[in-house]
Amino acid sequence: MNMAKPRVVIVGGGFGGLTAAASVARSAVSVTVIDRKNYHTFQPLLYQVATAGLSPGEIAAPIRGVLHRHKNVSVLMADVCGVDLEKRRVKLSDVEIEYDYLIVAAGASHSYFGHDEWAAAAPGLKTIEDALEIRRRVLLAFELAERQAVTTGTHEQLNFVIIGAGPTGVELAGTLAEVARHSLAMDFRAIDPRLTRVILVEGQPRVLPAYPEELSRSAHQQLEQLGVEVRTSTKVTAVEPGRVMLGDTMLPSAVTLWAAGVSASPLGKMLGPTDKAGRVLVESDLSVPGHREVFVIGDLANLAGKNGQPLPGLAPVAMQQGRAVARTIGREIRGLPREPFHYQDRGTMATIGRAAAVADFGKIKVSGFVAWILWLFVHIMSLIGFRNRVLVMLEWSWSYLTYERSARLITGDTALPGFQSKARAEGQDKGQAA
Amino acid sequence: MNMAKPRVVIVGGGFGGLTAAASVARSAVSVTVIDRKNYHTFQPLLYQVATAGLSPGEIAAPIRGVLHRHKNVSVLMADVCGVDLEKRRVKLSDVEIEYDYLIVAAGASHSYFGHDEWAAAAPGLKTIEDALEIRRRVLLAFELAERQAVTTGTHEQLNFVIIGAGPTGVELAGTLAEVARHSLAMDFRAIDPRLTRVILVEGQPRVLPAYPEELSRSAHQQLEQLGVEVRTSTKVTAVEPGRVMLGDTMLPSAVTLWAAGVSASPLGKMLGPTDKAGRVLVESDLSVPGHREVFVIGDLANLAGKNGQPLPGLAPVAMQQGRAVARTIGREIRGLPREPFHYQDRGTMATIGRAAAVADFGKIKVSGFVAWILWLFVHIMSLIGFRNRVLVMLEWSWSYLTYERSARLITGDTALPGFQSKARAEGQDKGQAA
Repeated sequence: MNMAKPRVVIVGGGFGGLTAAASVARSAVSVTVIDRKNYHTFQPLLYQVATAGLSPGEIAAPIRGVLHRHKNVSVLMADVCGVDLEKRRVKLSDVEIEYDYLIVAAGASHSYFGHDEWAAAAPGLKTIEDALEIRRRVLLAFELAERQAVTTGTHEQLNFVIIGAGPTGVELAGTLAEVARHSLAMDFRAIDPRLTRVILVEGQPRVLPAYPEELSRSAHQQLEQLGVEVRTSTKVTAVEPGRVMLGDTMLPSAVTLWAAGVSASPLGKMLGPTDKAGRVLVESDLSVPGHREVFVIGDLANLAGKNGQPLPGLAPVAMQQGRAVARTIGREIRGLPREPFHYQDRGTMATIGRAAAVADFGKIKVSGFVAWILWLFVHIMSLIGFRNRVLVMLEWSWSYLTYERSARLITGDTALPGFQSKARAEGQDKGQAA
Repeated sequence: MNMAKPRVVIVGGGFGGLTAAASVARSAVSVTVIDRKNYHTFQPLLYQVATAGLSPGEIAAPIRGVLHRHKNVSVLMADVCGVDLEKRRVKLSDVEIEYDYLIVAAGASHSYFGHDEWAAAAPGLKTIEDALEIRRRVLLAFELAERQAVTTGTHEQLNFVIIGAGPTGVELAGTLAEVARHSLAMDFRAIDPRLTRVILVEGQPRVLPAYPEELSRSAHQQLEQLGVEVRTSTKVTAVEPGRVMLGDTMLPSAVTLWAAGVSASPLGKMLGPTDKAGRVLVESDLSVPGHREVFVIGDLANLAGKNGQPLPGLAPVAMQQGRAVARTIGREIRGLPREPFHYQDRGTMATIGRAAAVADFGKIKVSGFVAWILWLFVHIMSLIGFRNRVLVMLEWSWSYLTYERSARLITGDTALPGFQSKARAEGQDKGQAA
C-alpha cells in the first residue's frame, strides 16, 4: 500500500514463481503473484495422481497458504492475456496491473509437434486436470473391458501406449505396468489385468535421451523387468481414438498418453526473441533483451548451461533462478550492480516404478533400489508443507506394503473417447450374434 | 460361474448395497453388484469435501477393492436403465442381466420441489462431483471478491445462502462459517473473509426438524455461536444466479447451496407402489409387493418404524436392511421361512462445526464438545478401510490444530455462474470511471 515501494509482479505460481515471491518479499517491495489456478502443483508427482496413487490435494498447495506469512505479497487468481512492455503493465481480461519489475514464470505446456488434433486421443500430463483425465481413462479402460467380457464372453486386448520416453513417459509406463500386474490383479473376475500390455514408444535410439547412456541402458532394463515393452527409434505417424500408427504399423490402444513434446507458454513471444520451443532467449542475468526490469525464469527461459545446451526444464533450475532474480532486484534497490546467473547442478533423477529409478550426480551414477530410495527422500522433502509430506509418506508406505492404489476413483464423464464406443458396438454385435 | 447357484443382483454400491453384498456372499450364491460409479462414497463426510477439509480419495473406497476378497462377487460399472420384473432381468444400456434375487439400493438424489430450474444456481450435495462443484464455487467466490477489490477498490458483500436446515444444511453452514472466520482469515489482502455472511434458511420453525426440540434449540445456539445467521419459518420463493428470494425479500447470494429436499431414485417407480418422495412401499421383509424375489433397501425404501413414520434415510438403516435381506435370502435357500425387518435404533447425531454437535440416544441427549467427540469417533470408525481412517484422523487433527483446510483447490471451470459476470461487469464500470 506504500506507493514508494517498487511493485514486483510475478506471473506463475510454479516452482520458479513461488521461490521468487518468497525471496523477493524480504526486500522493501510490494509483490503481486498472478496465477490462473489458486494452487501450486508439485509437478514431479503428477504421474502419481494420474496412476491413482496419490490424491490431487496431496501434491497441491494453495498459493495463498504458501505465501500468507509474507504481508507484502498479494495473490490474484487470473489469466494473464498479455504484457505491455512500454507502459510496464500486465494485462488481465478486464484490467491492467502496473509493475516496476516483472518476473514471468509461466512455464510450459505439451506440444504435439504441429499435430494438435492428437490432443483429444492422447492427453499429456502438465496439470491436475490432465492427471485426473488420465486416471479416468486408465481406470475406465479396465472397467469397460470387464463389462465387455461379462456381457459378451470376450474383450479386446488392453494396450496402454505411452508416447515419449523422457522422465514423464518412463514414470507413467513403469507405474502403469505395476498397477496392471499387481494393484488391480485381484479386482476383476472376467478379465486378467496382468495381461495388459504397456508399450513405451520413443523416437530416439534410447529411453531418457537426456541422461548418460549407462543410465538409459539401466532404465531400459528396469522398465522391461516391470513388464513394459520398450520401442526405441520408433516414430509415431498418427494418433487416433483407439489406435496409434507406428510408421505403417497399426497398434490398437485403449489408452494413449502423450509425454513427448513440450512448448513454452505463449507469453514468451510477447516478451522477446524465442527459440524453436518458444522459450525466451534471456540475458545472463535472466532479463529480457532491452528490458532490464523484465525477467523470465524456469521452463519459459532459454539460458545456456556450462555445456552450451539450454538448462533443462527442472524444478531446481526454476527455483535457483527465482532466488537469483529476487537477489538481483534486492541488490538493485540498494544500488548494487547485477550479476550473471550460474546454475548449480546437484544431480538429476528419474523414477521408473517400485524399487526402480536412476540418478545421475555427475561422477556418481546410481540405479535400482538405492536410486529409488534417494528419489523418494528428495521428493518427500521437496513437497511444500508438513502435512503433504506426512500424507505422501503414509500413502507410499501403505502402497509399498499392499500394492494398493488407493485413489482409484473415476470422476467426471464415464465415457471413454474412441475406445468405449468401439467396445460397446462390438459388445452389441456379439451379444446379438450369441 | 456355477449356474446352479442362485444369482443375486444388487443395484447400488452405497451403504445398503455393499453391506448386502458382503453379507449375502457368505451364502451359496453368485453375486453381481452394479453401480454407475466405481467407488463407494462415504456420504456423511461429503460436506467435508465440499468445504475443502478432506480430499475425495479420503472418503471414497473403490467398490472392487471393498469386495475383492469375496470370490463369488463380481462388480459391474454401469447405469441401470430399468428392471423387467416378469423376465427377472436388470436392463443396462446394451445388455440385460438375469437374476434370481434382486436387491435395489439405488438411493436418493436432491429434489427441488418441482423447481428443477433452481439446480444450476443452487447445487445439492449427494455425490463427489457435487462436493467438488460446491468447493469450487465457495473458493472461487473469495478469489473473485479479492480480485474485484484489488482492481476496483471495493467488492460486493459475500453472502453464502444454504437452503434447508436438516443435518446436511447445518453441517455446511457451520463449517462454511468456520472456513470464512478462521481458515481463510489470513489469506487475503484486499477483502476480509471474516465479514462473509453465512445464512441458513429453513421453512420449518426450527433447525434439524427431525430431531427432538431440545437438540434443535441447542443446534440453533451453536450455529449462532459459530457466526451463522439462522432464519427459520422462512420460505424460499425463487433461486437465481446471484440471489435468493425469501418471500418478497431479495437476498444477494454469491453462493447458494441446496440442502432442502430429497427424492428417491427413479428406479423405484418401476418396482412397485411409491410414496410422494418416490420411495417404494415395501413389505415387512423389505420385498416388493407381488415380487418376493425383489427387495428394496435404504433411502429408496419406505418402511414404517416403531413410531409409524418411515425410517429415516440414514446409513445404519440401510446397512441393517442390507444384512436382513442377505439373511432372508440365505435362509430361503436353506428352506427356512422369512422374518420381518426391525430397525435397531442406536441413536442419531449431527455435527455443526468445530467442537459443536448434537446427539440423540433416546433418553440421553448430548450437545456441544462431547457430542462432537462422539461424532468424530463414530465417523472415523465407520469409514471403510484402515487407510482412510488413518488419513481422515490425521487431516482432522491437523485441521483442528491449525484451522487449515488443506484441500482448497479450485479444479475445473474457473467461472462462477451468475456471480462472476456480475462482479466483472461492475469491476469494468468502476475501472473505467476511475
